[in-house]
Amino acid sequence: MSAPTEYKFSGWMGLDNESYKGQLVEGEYEVKPFEENDVDIKVSHCGICGSDLHTLRSGWGQTAYPCVVGHEIVGTAVKVGSSVKGIKVGDRVGVGAQSSSCLQADCEECAAGDESYCPRIVGTYGSKHKSGHKSFGGYADYARVPSHFVVQLSDISLSSEVLAPMMCGGVTVYSPLVRNGCGPGKRVGIVGLGGLGHFGVLFARALGADKVVAISRKASKRADALAMGADLYISTDEDPDWATTHAKSLDLIVSTVSGPNMPFAGYLQLLRTHGVFIQVGAPEDKLPAISAFSLIGRGLKVGGSLIGSPKEIRDMVELADKKGVKSWVNLWPMTKVNEALIKFEEGVPRYRFVLVNEKHAEMPDARL
Amino acid sequence: MSAPTEYKFSGWMGLDNESYKGQLVEGEYEVKPFEENDVDIKVSHCGICGSDLHTLRSGWGQTAYPCVVGHEIVGTAVKVGSSVKGIKVGDRVGVGAQSSSCLQADCEECAAGDESYCPRIVGTYGSKHKSGHKSFGGYADYARVPSHFVVQLSDISLSSEVLAPMMCGGVTVYSPLVRNGCGPGKRVGIVGLGGLGHFGVLFARALGADKVVAISRKASKRADALAMGADLYISTDEDPDWATTHAKSLDLIVSTVSGPNMPFAGYLQLLRTHGVFIQVGAPEDKLPAISAFSLIGRGLKVGGSLIGSPKEIRDMVELADKKGVKSWVNLWPMTKVNEALIKFEEGVPRYRFVLVNEKHAEMPDARL
Repeated sequence: MSAPTEYKFSGWMGLDNESYKGQLVEGEYEVKPFEENDVDIKVSHCGICGSDLHTLRSGWGQTAYPCVVGHEIVGTAVKVGSSVKGIKVGDRVGVGAQSSSCLQADCEECAAGDESYCPRIVGTYGSKHKSGHKSFGGYADYARVPSHFVVQLSDISLSSEVLAPMMCGGVTVYSPLVRNGCGPGKRVGIVGLGGLGHFGVLFARALGADKVVAISRKASKRADALAMGADLYISTDEDPDWATTHAKSLDLIVSTVSGPNMPFAGYLQLLRTHGVFIQVGAPEDKLPAISAFSLIGRGLKVGGSLIGSPKEIRDMVELADKKGVKSWVNLWPMTKVNEALIKFEEGVPRYRFVLVNEKHAEMPDARL
Repeated sequence: MSAPTEYKFSGWMGLDNESYKGQLVEGEYEVKPFEENDVDIKVSHCGICGSDLHTLRSGWGQTAYPCVVGHEIVGTAVKVGSSVKGIKVGDRVGVGAQSSSCLQADCEECAAGDESYCPRIVGTYGSKHKSGHKSFGGYADYARVPSHFVVQLSDISLSSEVLAPMMCGGVTVYSPLVRNGCGPGKRVGIVGLGGLGHFGVLFARALGADKVVAISRKASKRADALAMGADLYISTDEDPDWATTHAKSLDLIVSTVSGPNMPFAGYLQLLRTHGVFIQVGAPEDKLPAISAFSLIGRGLKVGGSLIGSPKEIRDMVELADKKGVKSWVNLWPMTKVNEALIKFEEGVPRYRFVLVNEKHAEMPDARL
């Protein structure tokens, strides 16, 4: 592949906190000066993540508009700094959500490969980067990213549309599954069957769990869950006595939904003695109050997990490649991003939306 | 040692839910028939545990009076069933709190060495045992105990007064420390410096933690904590900005106190990324509500732990023996048990009360 010698940073910008309602506008913007550890990426695909909309509506504090979101990027390296190792111009690469971690030697988290927990992280795209320059994301033609966060994908056989939503959505559930021992001998539950939850089922299966149980409110996603590899589907709204019927049947639960009305005590009832419940996603919500008694009497743990590191992303795509894990995606031409955002808010994704930048990749007709 | 051929089961009985106020009465009672896996123990020492008083006042549901509590027993085996292995008449032995676990082959917890989490456990002494016979505890002359729960202590050099309160109080903190990796390289906090907390400091030190931090409301126990082996003492009432000053300084916290007004968010602030907070004791209290955000953003876990298994008790006393861990105890002649209960409720123990049965052991004058 030959690299273009000139290109412009142009993308779909949010201009205010109403922009998530399908009001992004396309335009050019100035990115930070290129440094020798940077990689410029020609974006072919970018997943839509719930936190994109959250950032666009200033849900985690005031966003610095104009703002270009998108942190599930796949594309081609078109410019590679002289100090970058392992990536060359023309490589297919991916980028996830943590690319504003500080990477300083005095940062315990960054030094330990826990980049997503970096206390100096400035948030997803749209925030002002520590350099004083703003970060711009992947709803765009090109993205400039520090190489530490650029994952090599050239040796992976999976398609870019399958890989893109793994960069954040996939690793958000992959990381807590691996860190909490998901694998042979373990029985794993996934709460919620949305974008994150569908990855939970796929990766729990790929990691070799003895049993994978999808747990969702309605019964309507049962067939999908089983097709993704779940052994059992529990509808908490429609299966009577689900918590007692399946009591103590799981070693680990990864929950992708939260809220004050979730049947939390029932979820904990599903856990075996010493079981672990990990909450991911939806960090604006509160978990219901936990009685010390329920944790003590059964030796349970309740925890949380935030995204995953570049190394974990790489491990995940290797596993996905080996096991043939395929994200369930609906594809949208990037030019229809505003329509996609509206449909996203309506809960349409089955199970993840991916934008295709038709300037750089072909949009398969059959997938819309 | 020669075993007595006849002895009576006599002890200090609670007759109603007011009995914890120092109203135990001495008398005889009928214990379950001797089975060939039982051991009869001549009680020399018995620790007083908070749950003794809780049981006496029917705090966990109606207690079946008359009730003899006490599950921190040390004494001498005087009768050993024919199917018992590893214990002979004359051995010094100990018993902890979980001796009504079912031990059935179909019990996942008992089979896994998690006896204290046995779902068929009938509670501490005073409850009706599954056999239909009542369990009677260690505020007594003799106790009849299934051998599975009898821990060999003859090869341990520590005194019985030091060993007795470890049987429950000690293992309640030892178990979560070990299960959560307390040892070299780890920095460990202990919340609360009462009976359990003092064991937390002693055992975190004995297990080789890099740093042991005692955390308590008042500053008054600082000197004691340092003498027990703490490197640092935090008074949450009196040290200004303690949570920020010591932020992210601990890998593991074991909390021995709980309640809706505990500075829980501050405790979590003390934990490093991926830190673990384990609650023990005080199971009637609720933990304050936990926001999902605090768990997710820092990858924390909050859990609970309940007592420990006979195997863990044995491991603990071996460690204590090797490292010279000495419980800080106040000794009471068992005949003064009622006075001791009143003082216990007043918060007098520094740090654990132990009853000495003067019929079977000498009461050191100097220790009261």
